[in-house]
Amino acid sequence: MTATERVSVEGHIIDSLILAKVLDTIVAAGVKHRLVDVDIGQGNADVSRAVIEITTSDEATLDALCLDLQVHGANRVSSGEAELVAADLDGVLPAGFYSTTNLPTEVRVGGRWLAVDRPEMDCALVVHTDGRAHTAPMHRVKAGDMVVVGHDGVRVTAPEKPRGQSPFEFMNSDVSSEKPKALLVNDVAARIAGAKAAGRKILAVCGPAVIHTGAGPAIAQMISGGFVDVLFAGNGFATHDMESNVLGTSLGVSVREGALTEGGHANHLRVINEVRRHGSIAAAVEAGYITGGVMYECVKLGVPFVLAGSLRDDGPLPDVITDMVTAADAMREHVDGVGVALMCATTLHAIATGNILPAGVETFCVDINQAVVTKLADRGSHQALGIVTDVGLFMGDLADRLCSAGG
Amino acid sequence: MTATERVSVEGHIIDSLILAKVLDTIVAAGVKHRLVDVDIGQGNADVSRAVIEITTSDEATLDALCLDLQVHGANRVSSGEAELVAADLDGVLPAGFYSTTNLPTEVRVGGRWLAVDRPEMDCALVVHTDGRAHTAPMHRVKAGDMVVVGHDGVRVTAPEKPRGQSPFEFMNSDVSSEKPKALLVNDVAARIAGAKAAGRKILAVCGPAVIHTGAGPAIAQMISGGFVDVLFAGNGFATHDMESNVLGTSLGVSVREGALTEGGHANHLRVINEVRRHGSIAAAVEAGYITGGVMYECVKLGVPFVLAGSLRDDGPLPDVITDMVTAADAMREHVDGVGVALMCATTLHAIATGNILPAGVETFCVDINQAVVTKLADRGSHQALGIVTDVGLFMGDLADRLCSAGG
Amino acid sequence: MTATERVSVEGHIIDSLILAKVLDTIVAAGVKHRLVDVDIGQGNADVSRAVIEITTSDEATLDALCLDLQVHGANRVSSGEAELVAADLDGVLPAGFYSTTNLPTEVRVGGRWLAVDRPEMDCALVVHTDGRAHTAPMHRVKAGDMVVVGHDGVRVTAPEKPRGQSPFEFMNSDVSSEKPKALLVNDVAARIAGAKAAGRKILAVCGPAVIHTGAGPAIAQMISGGFVDVLFAGNGFATHDMESNVLGTSLGVSVREGALTEGGHANHLRVINEVRRHGSIAAAVEAGYITGGVMYECVKLGVPFVLAGSLRDDGPLPDVITDMVTAADAMREHVDGVGVALMCATTLHAIATGNILPAGVETFCVDINQAVVTKLADRGSHQALGIVTDVGLFMGDLADRLCSAGG
Amino acid sequence: MTATERVSVEGHIIDSLILAKVLDTIVAAGVKHRLVDVDIGQGNADVSRAVIEITTSDEATLDALCLDLQVHGANRVSSGEAELVAADLDGVLPAGFYSTTNLPTEVRVGGRWLAVDRPEMDCALVVHTDGRAHTAPMHRVKAGDMVVVGHDGVRVTAPEKPRGQSPFEFMNSDVSSEKPKALLVNDVAARIAGAKAAGRKILAVCGPAVIHTGAGPAIAQMISGGFVDVLFAGNGFATHDMESNVLGTSLGVSVREGALTEGGHANHLRVINEVRRHGSIAAAVEAGYITGGVMYECVKLGVPFVLAGSLRDDGPLPDVITDMVTAADAMREHVDGVGVALMCATTLHAIATGNILPAGVETFCVDINQAVVTKLADRGSHQALGIVTDVGLFMGDLADRLCSAGG
Repeated sequence: MTATERVSVEGHIIDSLILAKVLDTIVAAGVKHRLVDVDIGQGNADVSRAVIEITTSDEATLDALCLDLQVHGANRVSSGEAELVAADLDGVLPAGFYSTTNLPTEVRVGGRWLAVDRPEMDCALVVHTDGRAHTAPMHRVKAGDMVVVGHDGVRVTAPEKPRGQSPFEFMNSDVSSEKPKALLVNDVAARIAGAKAAGRKILAVCGPAVIHTGAGPAIAQMISGGFVDVLFAGNGFATHDMESNVLGTSLGVSVREGALTEGGHANHLRVINEVRRHGSIAAAVEAGYITGGVMYECVKLGVPFVLAGSLRDDGPLPDVITDMVTAADAMREHVDGVGVALMCATTLHAIATGNILPAGVETFCVDINQAVVTKLADRGSHQALGIVTDVGLFMGDLADRLCSAGG
Repeated sequence: MTATERVSVEGHIIDSLILAKVLDTIVAAGVKHRLVDVDIGQGNADVSRAVIEITTSDEATLDALCLDLQVHGANRVSSGEAELVAADLDGVLPAGFYSTTNLPTEVRVGGRWLAVDRPEMDCALVVHTDGRAHTAPMHRVKAGDMVVVGHDGVRVTAPEKPRGQSPFEFMNSDVSSEKPKALLVNDVAARIAGAKAAGRKILAVCGPAVIHTGAGPAIAQMISGGFVDVLFAGNGFATHDMESNVLGTSLGVSVREGALTEGGHANHLRVINEVRRHGSIAAAVEAGYITGGVMYECVKLGVPFVLAGSLRDDGPLPDVITDMVTAADAMREHVDGVGVALMCATTLHAIATGNILPAGVETFCVDINQAVVTKLADRGSHQALGIVTDVGLFMGDLADRLCSAGG
Repeated sequence: MTATERVSVEGHIIDSLILAKVLDTIVAAGVKHRLVDVDIGQGNADVSRAVIEITTSDEATLDALCLDLQVHGANRVSSGEAELVAADLDGVLPAGFYSTTNLPTEVRVGGRWLAVDRPEMDCALVVHTDGRAHTAPMHRVKAGDMVVVGHDGVRVTAPEKPRGQSPFEFMNSDVSSEKPKALLVNDVAARIAGAKAAGRKILAVCGPAVIHTGAGPAIAQMISGGFVDVLFAGNGFATHDMESNVLGTSLGVSVREGALTEGGHANHLRVINEVRRHGSIAAAVEAGYITGGVMYECVKLGVPFVLAGSLRDDGPLPDVITDMVTAADAMREHVDGVGVALMCATTLHAIATGNILPAGVETFCVDINQAVVTKLADRGSHQALGIVTDVGLFMGDLADRLCSAGG
Repeated sequence: MTATERVSVEGHIIDSLILAKVLDTIVAAGVKHRLVDVDIGQGNADVSRAVIEITTSDEATLDALCLDLQVHGANRVSSGEAELVAADLDGVLPAGFYSTTNLPTEVRVGGRWLAVDRPEMDCALVVHTDGRAHTAPMHRVKAGDMVVVGHDGVRVTAPEKPRGQSPFEFMNSDVSSEKPKALLVNDVAARIAGAKAAGRKILAVCGPAVIHTGAGPAIAQMISGGFVDVLFAGNGFATHDMESNVLGTSLGVSVREGALTEGGHANHLRVINEVRRHGSIAAAVEAGYITGGVMYECVKLGVPFVLAGSLRDDGPLPDVITDMVTAADAMREHVDGVGVALMCATTLHAIATGNILPAGVETFCVDINQAVVTKLADRGSHQALGIVTDVGLFMGDLADRLCSAGG
């Protein structure tokens, strides 16, 4: 009941990433595949060719996959004649119409390959009796036009390799905000659960916006649920977490009732001052000054934390390591055994942590600012995965998912 | 049991927005106030002066508010001597320490006003026996230093008016992503409910990212719950909404199982084609081709919609008005009676709608991209309120809040 | 030969910022004005009223200004009858047509004020013989329609004050990237020159992107031209500046020939290592290891610099102050006398510097990322002015302008 | 005098993009290479192996390149013993120290491969007499520590293939704003010149921000210099271009003297109205109403333009095609023969144009907003190259470079 097909790609398929994209598409579709023939050109000028056999559970999946592969320049090996069906209404295509790529295209009619005029994506292919073939946007098709349906008898040429050195790099959609976010929540939750099951540690790296956007309770819930094994943060995060516990505000903004302007621009200073008086966060927790929140849960459950100072700190808190070299060394002590790193709304600590993590750690970088997410990669942490979203809403959903499932 | 105090501001308090900010801070705190004395300078060079009496429920609220007002240059009228308390530990301030602004500051000690050296925000004020007063960051205070506590005997000078014409404008934090988002959800919900109660219409303006990020069901739920009275969107939004209903994908990406790469880059074309065959969205709903989603709810419940075309449309759908002048005129027909406009993840339609709305309509612009939110204001829609967040998560929470409360 | 007019505003003109915007518009136009009558309501519910007399050099300027003021709800006091002119072509308005705001509007015809239907901005006002008046987009006007021209006989109602407390704030276009940038260059140059002339210091605060984008030589030129008196930066900036001098790369990327991928990801480490061997940047300059660039100019010309460490630093350089409290204190030593602070492509150092600057310092924050520019204001540095642009191009133009003018 | 070396990679080198990155790095370095051995695993579980011979002009280039390749997991085939040199100062490494990647690493000492503890990037490798090897940040090295120098005897393991399907995609630095912009100007200029030389057309696609930011004269200069063969834009671009010619403002903002608030928010309406009266832009040029600018140059030099309407247009201008289907068809007429497409500060027109361009057209997308640049790729225009910069400054420099070189 399975369906099998061979597809081939030809051109500069290695260094233009064509073969990689083709295999990536196949792997993402979760189907069986086998490289039956690979012929790699040795030098810069030589073209390469690969033939891949794919096997799917049914014909429909195979057809859909082959269509996707053609966008990257991969054609079916056994491509017969194109099937032509007349449009029955102006501006409406026959069901099953072939949808074009923007690559140079040929269509096989009457035993010959016809070059298609005007490559344009998302169009239909219309073949005329005089042997001309061209793309047609849906609205331009007239009743009676002969339109290619299905996949047979259409082949494309793989994209040209860009010539020479380039100071530009190709854009792609790696870090987009337009992804279904509920699904990302589930996936991150699954990876955290998987890492825990494998005996690996979970590292949370948090910026102060985590507290400002109301995600503090979510992190605290994850800690008490056993889903955070070590915390890296700064003076701001810890201060605002405790400020929200003691005074109900974050940088003077109420995190409970929603009034953005209360008396309170000095609230964080007062909390820092009192914790300094106690001598440490742990002492302030023991004395009953801090009664909840992220730092409280860390102290109570013995989850280790490293608070690294920064140039803009008020106070700082007594636990903050103000010497940067010492602080980075303290972070290095906790890196061993980390399986997942979750970086929330922090540029500085995310980059600093990325610098000291080995390549194998699964890293999620959650931030509303795409530039921040990209910046992490610019600094060399190539294994990081970016999620452009609102940390205040995302972490709440993540904690719910983890802690209800973890029951 | 109430507390009353008079504060005064002096300087270019009108055109430098100082008085506005002071009153805004008072209003936001929700306390009673009265302008007891206003003396407005007539020309450019003349300074103005205002005295405001504020009345709060208790002393603590009054003190907090006065502290906030001082950031804008407003001082208590009756300011006695500063109270000095010696620090008892190095690097720890006395409780109740006065927290500085970055304005020029004076402190009253021994019947004289001393100018404070080095204005710096978030510091303590230290007064020496030799009559010098200076700011001190917390860590620099030594045991024995005399620190100002409370609010008496400290006054500041209102910020200078910037001189002359400026091609720059002042930055402020109008559209920040660092706000507690759950509270914003509640507030938008309350305003929608309020507008409904007042017999005003709710207008939703949606971009395709609403569907891509998984917020389609939330909009559909709001429609079926009666919280949307008219919908403005484009070909992309309607197409992907129906694509997700018919084929389970949005622009070929599965919105249910989370696999980002399925066969399906042509899915939206196939759905457009079939709806074109039916002749209209309503006909496709009646024929049972469309069985759920935003457009389905609109058809079933008779909620009017205007789908305006754009240059990048595939198809387009038969309901799409392709002439822009006609489309804008069609939108104008629905503007009357609108009380709240909710613009979700769309630049083009948000600006176009903002252009035709009267000034009184409460407008919320929800987008993950701060530049988009700012752009709306650049075009002249000054009444718009920006929420920088992830529309996929925000709209889900908003629909839950509205529809559970609406019960 | 001057023209004079009185305009009035009425409503919640103080706390809704209406009066401030009106005065701001007048001041920005550079015309003489006088507040002839101000009646401030004392409590929350009371409306206020102001009458302002403006005097311009000619009628055209006066008319243009009055039109702008009406957008904020200010009307001419002496408003006679509206002048009506028939349109002579379909879709074309009479020259001098009145252009609408989106505020509630009335038009005076036949001695009576008619309410205008459907307020919409950027439209014409059409008055019918039956006494109805309505807005009309340009394309909807027919030949023969009676259209209001000029400014007489039209009045608007000032925008309503938003009711109650709001967790939202109004959007405005404070920090837009859509400004003519060449003009901003001139203006920043003028302010720097002005501060120098007044004997104030210029502070430059620089992030590593200054070097990556090729603006290092511009900063060096400004230093050698005497336009920078003190420099705040971090390990990255100083390292890449010297790396570009010694090895011609910035983080391994060639800054001269444009090849983005050279051998060289360890180049910055090698430079740091050699400067550590010399013991200090000054020693490395004296020994001839560093022969140009920003740090070189600082050493040669005795311009003081503070290099503050951060958690993500490699090395660091021997001059970097790794203790954050010590580093901030070192920066405080240089704040006195600063007149202009120029913050280039740095979030961390910009915020840290903003925290310690007094309110009077003119601060320009140049960054390509609007979120960074906004963030500075969120932290309390309200005097900062944001320029969203490409620092690599902007600083080059600024240095050219300063140094050629400084001749 | 050339240097030759063989490097090998092993693992999931095809679908994890490892081989592609290795070849990309080699090609970017501009050196000769030859694939001497490729063994591709056939199924999902099988690893592949490739051996590549690289030949450079000298040893230094070869060493630098091999170091870069090792970041991607490629090792020298002939790797002898590691060379160890004792550090002579605390915190300073021997010159030529080996700089680590974050991959699992081994070092060959005494004929055996030792696994290196704690993989961390940008560190040194220290080998102890007891046979342990570990990474060491520069500051932790002590005088006497034996440090690996050079490249011999160090090998890494290629990054693991991420397991299973992922809704995430890997981040990388494709579209960064931190590039030397002057170099990008040169490169775009070279590609435009190259396309012209090859007889291909240059297409400019412009948004209104081009005019607001002061880049209008640059585009006009490029047109008069013969560097633009066809122009796609909208009502806003053409209107503000002509508004700046007739009235000296863009959306009411002076583009010459820099005053941001002049009377003039209706200026664009007046210009549209007068052009409507003339009947077309060409007629307005012929009548002497328009005397310069982009549209003027197009009319005078016969450069064809397509102005496509949008929902938010005022007016619109008589040349604007208001029907979107007709407008897209009009654009299609000009696509043939285009070699370079330059998209400036426009989302809508850039995506619409990207949809109809064949894959081979070199496309540059210039915008200050990274999200816009990424969005273009999300929509399927994979051949586009993004430049995140300030269009106002960039286009000025580009026009200067083209027109001065073009003589």
